[in-house]
Amino acid sequence: MSIPGILDLLKSFKNQVDKYIFEEVPSTHAIPEINLLYTMMRDYPSRAGKGLRPGLLMIFNRAFGGSDGIALNTAAALELFQNWIVIHDDIEDQSDLRRGLPALHVKYGVPLALNAGDALAGKMWELVLMNKDILGAEKALTIFGEFLHMYSQTTSGQHIELAWARNHRWDISEKDYFDMCRRKTAWYTCITPSWTGSLIAGAPQHLKDTIVKFGMDLGVAFQIQDDVLNLIGDRERYGKEIGGDILEGKRTLVLINLLSKCPDDKKRYVIDSLDRNREDKDIQLIDNILLLMKEYGSIDYAIEVSQKLARNARTTIIDSLDDSIEDEWKSVIVELVDFVVEREF
Amino acid sequence: MSIPGILDLLKSFKNQVDKYIFEEVPSTHAIPEINLLYTMMRDYPSRAGKGLRPGLLMIFNRAFGGSDGIALNTAAALELFQNWIVIHDDIEDQSDLRRGLPALHVKYGVPLALNAGDALAGKMWELVLMNKDILGAEKALTIFGEFLHMYSQTTSGQHIELAWARNHRWDISEKDYFDMCRRKTAWYTCITPSWTGSLIAGAPQHLKDTIVKFGMDLGVAFQIQDDVLNLIGDRERYGKEIGGDILEGKRTLVLINLLSKCPDDKKRYVIDSLDRNREDKDIQLIDNILLLMKEYGSIDYAIEVSQKLARNARTTIIDSLDDSIEDEWKSVIVELVDFVVEREF
Repeated sequence: MSIPGILDLLKSFKNQVDKYIFEEVPSTHAIPEINLLYTMMRDYPSRAGKGLRPGLLMIFNRAFGGSDGIALNTAAALELFQNWIVIHDDIEDQSDLRRGLPALHVKYGVPLALNAGDALAGKMWELVLMNKDILGAEKALTIFGEFLHMYSQTTSGQHIELAWARNHRWDISEKDYFDMCRRKTAWYTCITPSWTGSLIAGAPQHLKDTIVKFGMDLGVAFQIQDDVLNLIGDRERYGKEIGGDILEGKRTLVLINLLSKCPDDKKRYVIDSLDRNREDKDIQLIDNILLLMKEYGSIDYAIEVSQKLARNARTTIIDSLDDSIEDEWKSVIVELVDFVVEREF
Repeated sequence: MSIPGILDLLKSFKNQVDKYIFEEVPSTHAIPEINLLYTMMRDYPSRAGKGLRPGLLMIFNRAFGGSDGIALNTAAALELFQNWIVIHDDIEDQSDLRRGLPALHVKYGVPLALNAGDALAGKMWELVLMNKDILGAEKALTIFGEFLHMYSQTTSGQHIELAWARNHRWDISEKDYFDMCRRKTAWYTCITPSWTGSLIAGAPQHLKDTIVKFGMDLGVAFQIQDDVLNLIGDRERYGKEIGGDILEGKRTLVLINLLSKCPDDKKRYVIDSLDRNREDKDIQLIDNILLLMKEYGSIDYAIEVSQKLARNARTTIIDSLDDSIEDEWKSVIVELVDFVVEREF
């Protein structure tokens, strides 16, 4: 098989997954309110996305010799996980934009958006249950269990981040950050997609630790790159407000590094600024913080850490998987790692 | 076996289920934020409740000859469903009180409460997955499917009710109300508890329609009684704000009946009043609407409908289940039906 560029590959998987999702979430219903519910459930999935999560699942499934057909429903379930969780995240973070368009709660109000997120989570589980007929009862339950582990990691990571903000905690160490980040991002973005894809294709259980390690490094690298893009990305390409994390007072690796480096008076200024209510923050404040982050080399530091994690992820794939998968697929995965830390969106 | 009063029976099942839940949701964790998450997840389940849903499940399980041990995890999962869904409902409805205490989002803010609801839903699914070892893979997946049907009905019913309010719809018919009410309440309160309990014990598939019909009648009766208590109940016993539904502008059977009976000018007054923003409604307004509901006999009408549905539910159990379950258990279920429509809390 000739392997197209990684972006084309991701896109082709994303197209298959989208098609699947839009067949599963109907577009019309005789009751006008249910019609609206379907419209809301299809909203985020119809916005342009990278398709990284379902892409990883499909790639690992192929790498271990699986056909696309046995993995599509689970890949679609992962894509729905990402979509319903960000509907709720956008409410929790009071984010106005998602993928360049108004967030769902901005369009329809918090009550309907919150409930549509719940409804989409239900649809995700329906796709997971389909594995009963595709992979058999035992494997269906194993994948259900993998999804539940991912689910619990994600909600606990989200909780930690929200609780730091609520409790005005600024004494966050790098270790705290990495723990939060693995929970909040790495499991659902990389670990579970990679391992579940492998599992569907029949990868041996003893490879789990290796693939979990790969996904953990890549997942944290992904989040750091996301934090960096939130500071210095291009709004059009990135699709969220630039500086949004500063507005939300997010404890990112960049910020933690800045707080560890700058003198006490500046540290106090940064904390006082970020601790304000959102409505008391303005563009000038974002610019000031950004300038300090650049001055103290904190953005460069975060990029370095992200690159190092990406190197680890590459090494894991190239060295630790031995001949469990073909070199051709190792190259695809390495290309994907490069994309994750070099992307501009 | 001698059968204690229905309230004692519900209480004994509730105690078993609570014990199960508190073993599954830990009380402490080394990371202080996760500690807080556990505290939040245990909050609603630790408040006094009737335990109707897990009670129904345990009763039907026993009625069909099941031992308590094989049903406890699923009963606990049902209780968690009720708890996470009302965490989200309280946010959506801006309710201040739940079971006589401040709602979770009032105590901790919307972001943490919303996410804790999600986390509790994850725990519910973990309990459902446990059926793999208790009932075997096939039955575990069947019950997963029953929960998903309940889940989808509940979110669609909640959506319909929220969308009516958002779109200022006042042309709701009784038929619309019953459809919404079956989705929003009957499935998770009565149908799925009754049928899943039967299923766990090994009830034959051909009884499903009968038990679904029983649960549907009882579930709607339950909701109507709830609507009535919201208007004329005792705040201490009922545990929510009296008149809260009027504040929230809920389309109840009582209100639909009132709108169908009163002359145009009064109808316009009622709609204008209920359509106001919550902050523009006061006690006087609640009293005025309540007076009209009494004047036009709308509360009495709703009580009659609820009693009629309860009679149907009793008849279904006594006549349609034939000798599938013993008379002793039929009596228990009939007692439960009486409780549902006569309760004051």
